[in-house]
Amino acid sequence: MTTDFSATKRMFDLPAGMTYLDGNSLGPLPRAVADRVAHAVTQEWGHMLITGWNKAGWMDLPRRVGDRIARLIGAEAGSVIMGDTLSIKVYQALASAVEMNPERRVILSDTGNFPSDLYMADGLCRTLGRGYTLRTVAPEEVMEAIDETVAVTLITEVDYRTGRRHDMAAITERAHAKGALTIWDLAHSAGALPVDLAGCKADFAVGCTYKYLNSGPGGPAFIYVAPRHADLVRPALSGWLGHEAPFAFDLDYRPGRGIERMRVGTPPILQLAALDAALDVWDHVAMADLRATSLALTDRFIAGVEAACPDLVLATPRDHDRRGSQVSFRHPEGYAIMQALIAEGVVGDFRAPDIIRFGFTPLFIDAGDVDRAVAVLARIMAERLWDRPEFKARAKVT
Amino acid sequence: MTTDFSATKRMFDLPAGMTYLDGNSLGPLPRAVADRVAHAVTQEWGHMLITGWNKAGWMDLPRRVGDRIARLIGAEAGSVIMGDTLSIKVYQALASAVEMNPERRVILSDTGNFPSDLYMADGLCRTLGRGYTLRTVAPEEVMEAIDETVAVTLITEVDYRTGRRHDMAAITERAHAKGALTIWDLAHSAGALPVDLAGCKADFAVGCTYKYLNSGPGGPAFIYVAPRHADLVRPALSGWLGHEAPFAFDLDYRPGRGIERMRVGTPPILQLAALDAALDVWDHVAMADLRATSLALTDRFIAGVEAACPDLVLATPRDHDRRGSQVSFRHPEGYAIMQALIAEGVVGDFRAPDIIRFGFTPLFIDAGDVDRAVAVLARIMAERLWDRPEFKARAKVT
Repeated sequence: MTTDFSATKRMFDLPAGMTYLDGNSLGPLPRAVADRVAHAVTQEWGHMLITGWNKAGWMDLPRRVGDRIARLIGAEAGSVIMGDTLSIKVYQALASAVEMNPERRVILSDTGNFPSDLYMADGLCRTLGRGYTLRTVAPEEVMEAIDETVAVTLITEVDYRTGRRHDMAAITERAHAKGALTIWDLAHSAGALPVDLAGCKADFAVGCTYKYLNSGPGGPAFIYVAPRHADLVRPALSGWLGHEAPFAFDLDYRPGRGIERMRVGTPPILQLAALDAALDVWDHVAMADLRATSLALTDRFIAGVEAACPDLVLATPRDHDRRGSQVSFRHPEGYAIMQALIAEGVVGDFRAPDIIRFGFTPLFIDAGDVDRAVAVLARIMAERLWDRPEFKARAKVT
Repeated sequence: MTTDFSATKRMFDLPAGMTYLDGNSLGPLPRAVADRVAHAVTQEWGHMLITGWNKAGWMDLPRRVGDRIARLIGAEAGSVIMGDTLSIKVYQALASAVEMNPERRVILSDTGNFPSDLYMADGLCRTLGRGYTLRTVAPEEVMEAIDETVAVTLITEVDYRTGRRHDMAAITERAHAKGALTIWDLAHSAGALPVDLAGCKADFAVGCTYKYLNSGPGGPAFIYVAPRHADLVRPALSGWLGHEAPFAFDLDYRPGRGIERMRVGTPPILQLAALDAALDVWDHVAMADLRATSLALTDRFIAGVEAACPDLVLATPRDHDRRGSQVSFRHPEGYAIMQALIAEGVVGDFRAPDIIRFGFTPLFIDAGDVDRAVAVLARIMAERLWDRPEFKARAKVT
């Protein structure tokens, strides 16, 4: 398959005049979603009511959608299931992993991880007590820090601020050599670049779907458990839909088969319907093409900005193997620069203290969009258009 | 306000020819929902993209919707927030409560509780270790079982099978007298009958919204924390949106103010939009009217069925104070009887081993619906219409 990205671009409903480089925060609306969600509301919920759980396939949706995502992250069929939020899935994976490695007390992560992962790990350690600790090192020290005390590593492959990418295969190999398990957070990987969970022998992975997978605000998360572990993990979040027979209403919990046990409560059917429709776009995409085009776009953006904006300092690694699908620059006035960009219709985002961040999704971003973004940014920097009071007043959510 | 239930009935989109007595499992579609969800998809997500978090008020939606539910359950403004599933909220409330009562090791629940609550409590005890135990007694033994060893009670007010209702005020008073905290599961209470969390001095409450609140399949759950506790609880599920300053991206967790700290991850905006629209119906409802009408409907149904169907044994308490808004009968062939009813357009549901269950929601069920359901059930029993092979083959989900 050769991917036609002009065709995928037409599958999105993008606002006129906007260059949207924030798909790494919230992906845009795929055209197929509105009808699919309306169908779920009116034809399924409205007409089928309670029978929708069977007749409309709602009960199987978390598994069926999980299989569609599995293909994009190099996971085995039947190894991924949808539900909850990424933070909950982090907790669930961590709680399972530490129980599988009962002699050890350390969860290892890095300071480049998304803070919620660290918060959830910290909360779990407090609940576990008994000396469980979150050890956080600098990203470049992760390999060295994996030793015989580590029960599990909790690493986000692609850094949400800089776009720096960890070496999943090497870290996983090192972890296994030291007797540790691995949890990979794919928030900025799934749909951004090829991932090979099975090939890397990853143990667990988690991710969200509202970024590069375009499921919409608050779309459900996913969890991957390697098939070799799936019948061994004992879920800490032992909800009824992860039970072997939920509708037997037994008083005692018995985990379901394989990945099914990672279900917790009732799945969010409307959000799953949106995600299911959003995933149709991927039927037309070869991941190798996506990566090649993403790298071409990010190279083009880096070259353009560096040529025109000497005050912006590249925060993203230049090496292709060491970055995801975003480009970030540092500048002390980053917040105001991003506000000025947004006012001109070039939408990226800002991450404290000084990072402006641009996501490049070949599905709906092309070279023309890159050139426009470069030109607008160059003008803002050359004419100091960011130096206005209205761009410096910080909004509550950026 | 005097409630006009013929007006609320017109606010629902009910399938023609169906008498839907399963709103206690999945509420029907309120007419306002489809447009509101379509607006959230197309106008908010589609046009505002990332700025929807501020411009469309997505970030505040869990709190704003929580306040609308607070009014229905006798909770103080600012004490309820939406998110996750009921099972997750049970875990979150339990983990907070046991930490507030650190000298004690017992979670007390009863065998009439919904199994997922018990499973989640069991999972939490395993994660906590250190002697934490779930003690489960018969529903009628709860009062007696609350002693000085109990850290927290986890009680569902209305039994999902029988409709039996616990005495929230008495149990809460007894728990406090013995130094225990209380968590009330309102799955079959919120929107079913008046609840007075503040008046009962409840400590925590949790509930789902897809039953009597009609939010649709997989609608988000809610959690209540009494204002006297809200700035003291330390969340175990310490997600970034419960942080004091989520967008500071600090490496260390600091809980947000009050109920805000019970947020975890990114809220499900499409499901929240559906719920928000569904709650409009309640602007026209006085809870006292709802209760009076619900009791009249359930009395009418009990009297009609008992007169016509001597083989069905009432499982629901007759005493008004001791029941919710559903009526259940027992029969060894309950499953087949319910299938026969559904085939005739009278939709209730079956709960193993022998319970047929009927929910009565005055919002869209009136005396004519009750009479029709009685007549159909009477004919099925009199003519043994349930005794056919097609009604006895069990589906996967009932």
